[in-house]
Amino acid sequence: MGMVGGGEGAFIGQVHRYAAALDGEIELVCGAFSSDPEKSRRSGEALHLPAERVYASYQQMMQHEATLPAGERMQFVAIVTPNHMHFPVAAAALHAGFHVMSDKPATFDLQQALQLRELVRDTGLLYGLTHTYTGYPLVKEARDRVLAGELGAVRKVVVEYPQGWLASREDEADNKQAAWRLDPQQAGISCCMGDIGVHAANLAEYITGQKISRVCADLGAVVAGRTLDDDGSILLRFDNGARGVLMASQISVGEENALRIRVYGERGGLEWSQQEPNTLWLKWHDQPTQMLRTGLPYLGVVATANTRTPNGHPEGYLEAFANLYMAFAGQVRAFELGVDADERSADCPGIDDAVRGMAFIELAVAASNSDVKWHAFPQH
Amino acid sequence: MGMVGGGEGAFIGQVHRYAAALDGEIELVCGAFSSDPEKSRRSGEALHLPAERVYASYQQMMQHEATLPAGERMQFVAIVTPNHMHFPVAAAALHAGFHVMSDKPATFDLQQALQLRELVRDTGLLYGLTHTYTGYPLVKEARDRVLAGELGAVRKVVVEYPQGWLASREDEADNKQAAWRLDPQQAGISCCMGDIGVHAANLAEYITGQKISRVCADLGAVVAGRTLDDDGSILLRFDNGARGVLMASQISVGEENALRIRVYGERGGLEWSQQEPNTLWLKWHDQPTQMLRTGLPYLGVVATANTRTPNGHPEGYLEAFANLYMAFAGQVRAFELGVDADERSADCPGIDDAVRGMAFIELAVAASNSDVKWHAFPQH
Amino acid sequence: MGMVGGGEGAFIGQVHRYAAALDGEIELVCGAFSSDPEKSRRSGEALHLPAERVYASYQQMMQHEATLPAGERMQFVAIVTPNHMHFPVAAAALHAGFHVMSDKPATFDLQQALQLRELVRDTGLLYGLTHTYTGYPLVKEARDRVLAGELGAVRKVVVEYPQGWLASREDEADNKQAAWRLDPQQAGISCCMGDIGVHAANLAEYITGQKISRVCADLGAVVAGRTLDDDGSILLRFDNGARGVLMASQISVGEENALRIRVYGERGGLEWSQQEPNTLWLKWHDQPTQMLRTGLPYLGVVATANTRTPNGHPEGYLEAFANLYMAFAGQVRAFELGVDADERSADCPGIDDAVRGMAFIELAVAASNSDVKWHAFPQH
Amino acid sequence: MGMVGGGEGAFIGQVHRYAAALDGEIELVCGAFSSDPEKSRRSGEALHLPAERVYASYQQMMQHEATLPAGERMQFVAIVTPNHMHFPVAAAALHAGFHVMSDKPATFDLQQALQLRELVRDTGLLYGLTHTYTGYPLVKEARDRVLAGELGAVRKVVVEYPQGWLASREDEADNKQAAWRLDPQQAGISCCMGDIGVHAANLAEYITGQKISRVCADLGAVVAGRTLDDDGSILLRFDNGARGVLMASQISVGEENALRIRVYGERGGLEWSQQEPNTLWLKWHDQPTQMLRTGLPYLGVVATANTRTPNGHPEGYLEAFANLYMAFAGQVRAFELGVDADERSADCPGIDDAVRGMAFIELAVAASNSDVKWHAFPQH
Repeated sequence: MGMVGGGEGAFIGQVHRYAAALDGEIELVCGAFSSDPEKSRRSGEALHLPAERVYASYQQMMQHEATLPAGERMQFVAIVTPNHMHFPVAAAALHAGFHVMSDKPATFDLQQALQLRELVRDTGLLYGLTHTYTGYPLVKEARDRVLAGELGAVRKVVVEYPQGWLASREDEADNKQAAWRLDPQQAGISCCMGDIGVHAANLAEYITGQKISRVCADLGAVVAGRTLDDDGSILLRFDNGARGVLMASQISVGEENALRIRVYGERGGLEWSQQEPNTLWLKWHDQPTQMLRTGLPYLGVVATANTRTPNGHPEGYLEAFANLYMAFAGQVRAFELGVDADERSADCPGIDDAVRGMAFIELAVAASNSDVKWHAFPQH
Repeated sequence: MGMVGGGEGAFIGQVHRYAAALDGEIELVCGAFSSDPEKSRRSGEALHLPAERVYASYQQMMQHEATLPAGERMQFVAIVTPNHMHFPVAAAALHAGFHVMSDKPATFDLQQALQLRELVRDTGLLYGLTHTYTGYPLVKEARDRVLAGELGAVRKVVVEYPQGWLASREDEADNKQAAWRLDPQQAGISCCMGDIGVHAANLAEYITGQKISRVCADLGAVVAGRTLDDDGSILLRFDNGARGVLMASQISVGEENALRIRVYGERGGLEWSQQEPNTLWLKWHDQPTQMLRTGLPYLGVVATANTRTPNGHPEGYLEAFANLYMAFAGQVRAFELGVDADERSADCPGIDDAVRGMAFIELAVAASNSDVKWHAFPQH
Repeated sequence: MGMVGGGEGAFIGQVHRYAAALDGEIELVCGAFSSDPEKSRRSGEALHLPAERVYASYQQMMQHEATLPAGERMQFVAIVTPNHMHFPVAAAALHAGFHVMSDKPATFDLQQALQLRELVRDTGLLYGLTHTYTGYPLVKEARDRVLAGELGAVRKVVVEYPQGWLASREDEADNKQAAWRLDPQQAGISCCMGDIGVHAANLAEYITGQKISRVCADLGAVVAGRTLDDDGSILLRFDNGARGVLMASQISVGEENALRIRVYGERGGLEWSQQEPNTLWLKWHDQPTQMLRTGLPYLGVVATANTRTPNGHPEGYLEAFANLYMAFAGQVRAFELGVDADERSADCPGIDDAVRGMAFIELAVAASNSDVKWHAFPQH
Repeated sequence: MGMVGGGEGAFIGQVHRYAAALDGEIELVCGAFSSDPEKSRRSGEALHLPAERVYASYQQMMQHEATLPAGERMQFVAIVTPNHMHFPVAAAALHAGFHVMSDKPATFDLQQALQLRELVRDTGLLYGLTHTYTGYPLVKEARDRVLAGELGAVRKVVVEYPQGWLASREDEADNKQAAWRLDPQQAGISCCMGDIGVHAANLAEYITGQKISRVCADLGAVVAGRTLDDDGSILLRFDNGARGVLMASQISVGEENALRIRVYGERGGLEWSQQEPNTLWLKWHDQPTQMLRTGLPYLGVVATANTRTPNGHPEGYLEAFANLYMAFAGQVRAFELGVDADERSADCPGIDDAVRGMAFIELAVAASNSDVKWHAFPQH
């Protein structure tokens, strides 16, 4: 793979590299790691890349890689830039004939996401989106159990994603990530919903198999002086009539990355927390709550296929991330062989999630700005 | 004390009796335990009461007790009937010159609560309301720390109260409590908000010292065939501008009585869960989260005064309940002595909480029925 | 009941009073609360006792109460003094014809315990011992499940009881309890094992239904300058060949009262912790771990009969303690009626536990002082 | 690196490969994956290795690799065979001039470990031992805090390692690992202590900086028909006089891989559990317990240097394993440069841990077989 973004000091670029490397199936062969050519060069060097495969710009990278022999050139591009660059880079990659694995949110705005979908359809190339949390084995187990009807019809979903890292303006000062995420020119129309609310929405839809149909939103810039939201709560309805609440916050001081979901059906409920990802709780009416654990034989084939170590050997965020990369790599392999991807490979968020995520962000902001209570999730 | 309601098979009447008995300061001397005289008689006998102090009706009890000498008659009435009887019994007690300790919600509707407030003011008698959860020592500690400014200005409150006991219609069938709580004639206009949502609202206001100023509500009768709500989520604003979310549910299958609150200020956050009530979490930006525990010397005087056992000897629901009774008993003692109640005795929910609770319930229902997003909390 | 000990400032006397009062079935009618008559008087006054039933000494109390009419005099004596007074007071009570409910350890040494057993047998009176932790509903559930064979034959027991309150000599200085517990004249030959180790041993035998048959002990006075042990670890064998480890410590700084037991059988395991007493974990080989909770319908009749509130309303230490008092009160009632106590009333530690506990303490100390590895638990 | 062992179906070989791959600094270039040449070939193929670098035996691998040019041949050998092969392979590697990274326990018996130490000293080559659990960032933080004296002098250590996977003979039947671990010809004189007890001992010494000086051991073959121990408990003394308990078990049914350590000093205590490795508890006498979390700025430089993701993004077993590989790779780099390894690279268990671990296993078995209580840890 080649990488755009993720130079020195970046967080998510390094995460993508760990995730891609873990299984020994994906090799980083080139990159344009920064819009600053010198910084890109230094980053490539630190990554032991040959100098000629470290590019001064993503345009140069697409152009040059496309000229290399098939067995040698990169097979797909990992995009790990700030949001506003996701679309131009993805478009350039697709135009140049490369598959795309993109960080989320997919684009700067919904309009771009729709354009991107066109482009993916037109080129027939592959597109993956790193909604990481769907990569955890027990998230997959949760989904399987809900879809199999174990809980009965879903009635209620509570998904929350509190963080505290943007609780004060001082935190922004020397934090590169804070700077761009709070800047409407780079992040888009939302900070909190665009960064983490969209993960929560995606997770809720992934696990329940239901689509959000209506929202009532209350977003705010809690810390004085901010343009974009740093906190938001949203009442939800799903296609099947289920109710829900989605909370995302970056000012919940003392919270880390506390994504957590609870789903209640007619007969049972479940709970999963990202910070202790190897435990899945199943709750029943008059039977004891069950604690399911990663790696045990009572789990389904999907969870099992996405697990690397025996039970009791905790897997974490990088392994979840690597599961997405494994799936996407499987798609790429199948593409090259001209066959359909197998079920595991297909299980990676894609262009539809990209569009849906951007639609969610725009809907949340619009609904929050409105005095009307409920707003329908538009069809795209 | 005398008791109205709480005959054979009732839940909350027995709880009031345990709570009143624990400290050896309050004696149950009489009661009208059921609207069925024979059932009242049997209940009184089981409680070792003399037959002549077990009454066939609350009216009879008020009338007869008032004729007894001062040192002998009951000093206050504990009301533990279904909601629709709270007001008539309380009014009769006050008219007859007895203080009142009432289960919540205070009355059948707001109108009655306002009348009750008049009556309390006119008679000059004491009125206590068992918002039990404010009786826990660590809830008091939480309040003290927030009011002392340790967290900085409050910005965000998440209070949730999921239960699962009404998840299916079958559960109702042979459950006396379910029957009256879901019956608009006995429960009032709300089941879930009236039963537990009002606790959550009270707890949020108690700990933060802020009043709810606006709500955006989404209540529902999730289980088919119900008239009253069994689930609801409410977006909140507080007087100081803080945001909040209140969730209450009786259809979250597998949940027990999982009241939980999180408060985030500018500098710190806190978390408390009713099911593990002896732990209070304080969260900080760049310092380790602290786990505070009941009974330890670093706690404040209020928490300490409301604790009976050394740390590590878990206190629970009955002890919290008993704390309200201890406070109310202190008020009664002070009343008899003609002095002001001390600080600890004053720390028991009263008639203002009664009015506020009923106003909250009506507001929640009205807001939920409206297409307008935000609804102001009315002044009464 | 009458009480000996438990005057102003005492911890365990107040706990006994709460426990006895909770259910409204036991009334404190007299007491000799201190060896200091004036202090006894003040304590009795604070407890609203009539002056003539507050005695200057336990001898006076036994003598005088025995002269009162049957319906008026105390029915049993609660003993809550330091250890060295347990036996003389119990003996005096039995000689005077009163049943005894004693705090643990039963006596100052094993010799006294054996004498006490003689006396109990000779008088035919009742004797109860407050091994409080056996009063928790989920401890009873654990026992029931083990005895029913759900886990298969018991193979391994780990019981631990870490506390930190004696971690430094300064802690002793102004702590009345520390003073006598560390004084061989008042506590006997052991501090840590006599105070808490004996609880752990009792709990292990109660839950498993197996008796400790051999020990290998390592006790120590970790804090310099102490005569008695403040920490100890013991390897165990049980009658059926099961292995075990018992750890007790008062110098595990930062620990509260963290009694915890794990039992593993051929097919399943269980875990219970006193600080979160409303949760019982059942563990299985290839099935999810189950979390059982107090008050739920899947629990057995014994746990249910020892529970006062609905699930999710946490019960604690005082409720467990009150369960022992309820059982003992049931024995007293049955005794008066001349009938056998029912099963629930019989479920209270008695004179055999008293002897066994003292034998355990002496064995632990002797084994710790020996270079020989294993020491058999003697028959008495 | 080259690998010996770890062919199809093996657990630990794959773990070593993940760990080595994660950081993109170590490349698997060759291997002898099985004593069955065909199986080795298939395994190498699945790992995308060129056929000529997949060897039929480790002897062949050492011989052939040594003939390759320096820039091309493997730099070190990862040994992931059953125990009885650790020494011969390590010896062959060292004789052929290759550094060794070995799974634990280091050798089949102590005698071999002493020989191995000679060989390491004689060749001047590097030797690393994968006591994985010392690779966790919060284990390193724990060590740093203890060594810095934050807890005061260490007084008490409780380290436990319960597993349940060998709870029944049926489990063995179709479990390759169980087969060799319970076979004295392949595993050595101990199953449980050799497999996991030695990890626990290593962890206790790593965190406290104290060496075990005496043991009193009770090992057993709990499941009928076994030759080697499947459970054991050991009383400990450390060099500084601290007391301890070490428990290891493979028959604690329902437990996964629940390594957990508690250390108590004069002023404070700490607790860490492998199954929730991103939390470290610090406990204090009269101050709230603190919950430290991976990735936060209050942690020391060592923990921080061994962390890959921001706080709240859980790291797990593979990341801990990779930390050992990163350290060892740093040693190899420094070796090649002829400089001393930096502090981080030096922080990997080595030949002294290898000898100490084997001595611990032999001591535990000997002490368990003896009627004498205490046995000194011999100097080697």
